[in-house]
Amino acid sequence: MSESADIFSKFETELTVRPDDIDLYQHVHSTRYLDYVLAARFIQMERDYGMSMQDFADRGLGWFMTSSTVNYKRPLGLGDSMIVRCWIESFADRGCRVAFEIDRQPTGKRSCDGFCDYALIDLSTSRAIAIPEDIRTQYSI
Amino acid sequence: MSESADIFSKFETELTVRPDDIDLYQHVHSTRYLDYVLAARFIQMERDYGMSMQDFADRGLGWFMTSSTVNYKRPLGLGDSMIVRCWIESFADRGCRVAFEIDRQPTGKRSCDGFCDYALIDLSTSRAIAIPEDIRTQYSI
Amino acid sequence: MSESADIFSKFETELTVRPDDIDLYQHVHSTRYLDYVLAARFIQMERDYGMSMQDFADRGLGWFMTSSTVNYKRPLGLGDSMIVRCWIESFADRGCRVAFEIDRQPTGKRSCDGFCDYALIDLSTSRAIAIPEDIRTQYSI
Amino acid sequence: MSESADIFSKFETELTVRPDDIDLYQHVHSTRYLDYVLAARFIQMERDYGMSMQDFADRGLGWFMTSSTVNYKRPLGLGDSMIVRCWIESFADRGCRVAFEIDRQPTGKRSCDGFCDYALIDLSTSRAIAIPEDIRTQYSI
Repeated sequence: MSESADIFSKFETELTVRPDDIDLYQHVHSTRYLDYVLAARFIQMERDYGMSMQDFADRGLGWFMTSSTVNYKRPLGLGDSMIVRCWIESFADRGCRVAFEIDRQPTGKRSCDGFCDYALIDLSTSRAIAIPEDIRTQYSI
Repeated sequence: MSESADIFSKFETELTVRPDDIDLYQHVHSTRYLDYVLAARFIQMERDYGMSMQDFADRGLGWFMTSSTVNYKRPLGLGDSMIVRCWIESFADRGCRVAFEIDRQPTGKRSCDGFCDYALIDLSTSRAIAIPEDIRTQYSI
Repeated sequence: MSESADIFSKFETELTVRPDDIDLYQHVHSTRYLDYVLAARFIQMERDYGMSMQDFADRGLGWFMTSSTVNYKRPLGLGDSMIVRCWIESFADRGCRVAFEIDRQPTGKRSCDGFCDYALIDLSTSRAIAIPEDIRTQYSI
Repeated sequence: MSESADIFSKFETELTVRPDDIDLYQHVHSTRYLDYVLAARFIQMERDYGMSMQDFADRGLGWFMTSSTVNYKRPLGLGDSMIVRCWIESFADRGCRVAFEIDRQPTGKRSCDGFCDYALIDLSTSRAIAIPEDIRTQYSI
């Protein structure tokens, strides 16, 4: 990773638990928290960075997740609302690390946090490529 | 069914497609539309009728779906927003029929519609019971 | 519908409930039964009819669901196995009706049944087209 | 962690991708791999260790995931089969780390790997407790 953390903007999206997210323990199923992060990130890419997943696809590019780590603190339940906070923690030549936090509303208590590593993929070859300079600039906010 | 249709209020909830709802045809997976209906209905039970699923559970009651019918008109896609409109179409002695429409926003074009039949269940016996008069009154708006 | 029911073969696939299918009532979430039907049908199209969804896509064709009806009898639970039985109930000019039954194993008790209507779509125009004669023959078993 | 790795048995379960697992890139959605691990692990707890999740619940105990890490290597697609291999990597006083590998069949090529940390929870208090000696013994195979 070539840059220090905490220099990029954090963006927030409010989401609400759906009944189909709840599991046999009456809590949000553990694999759904990452779905909330992806949903929030797709919104933030378009709204906050001005370059959506579709804009990447139109240039023949896609972001593929290469690893994910989630630390579970307090489960969410039926009807709960949450703030999903995401930011770029660092850039690598061919990808980036996106960190996240999910806080239950209205208490603001941490539900989980973690990070996802992404590679930028040339969709025509399915291979990782160096992040074009204009994209890196647009996402370095 | 003991009452004529279209005499009960229609309630609306706005929802947004999540990336994990999208399937191999780039559209919302056909089984997820009903998840949107359930998510909207849970919100409307608490917000619009003033008696949530949890309130029913606290009285030892639950609503179990006995049948569902969905008519698919136009698929939703990644990032789409929708209005989910639900209403009670009719009551039976031990249940009710909830009709729904999902309209894509901002065009308002119909994405799908249909209805779900529910039975009111005594959770201690798992058997359908007659709808108590006060509940029927509270939901006859 | 242009043909009488019960003249086409019924095919069976065994599936097992996954933990992420379970909902807050400790049962399979009501919208997942149709996912089991789709999973079984995809397997049966390839294995039993010899023409998979991918084979259709290779010809520029796809099956889009136009309506679904599910009648819920007895819920499945964590770890349950089931037989998903599917068959073509009837053909229309541009589509067909696929009926299904899900029986819990090993008791064989009915969990749910219903049917899905499909339209055959020309993927290049997204419009329904008449079912080509060779496809109708291959699926009329 | 109080014990060295690679001393416990590895168990395998074969699973098949369902159509509802596929995402807009025509691959298994990234959050579903962990659902495969959980599905396999539930089977293995009952079949291989002889003490199922339900057996734990009957003793008032549950396993709650405290963190998960997934390394994605090669995506699975529609109709793919896989071997999900799981094992206990180490025990802590109040939990354990379960490692996993998912290999695509029949090639055996690695699709993803990673690990999940679990805490053993007293369901009556929702607090982590020390693993009872008999459970530790039964799972130390």
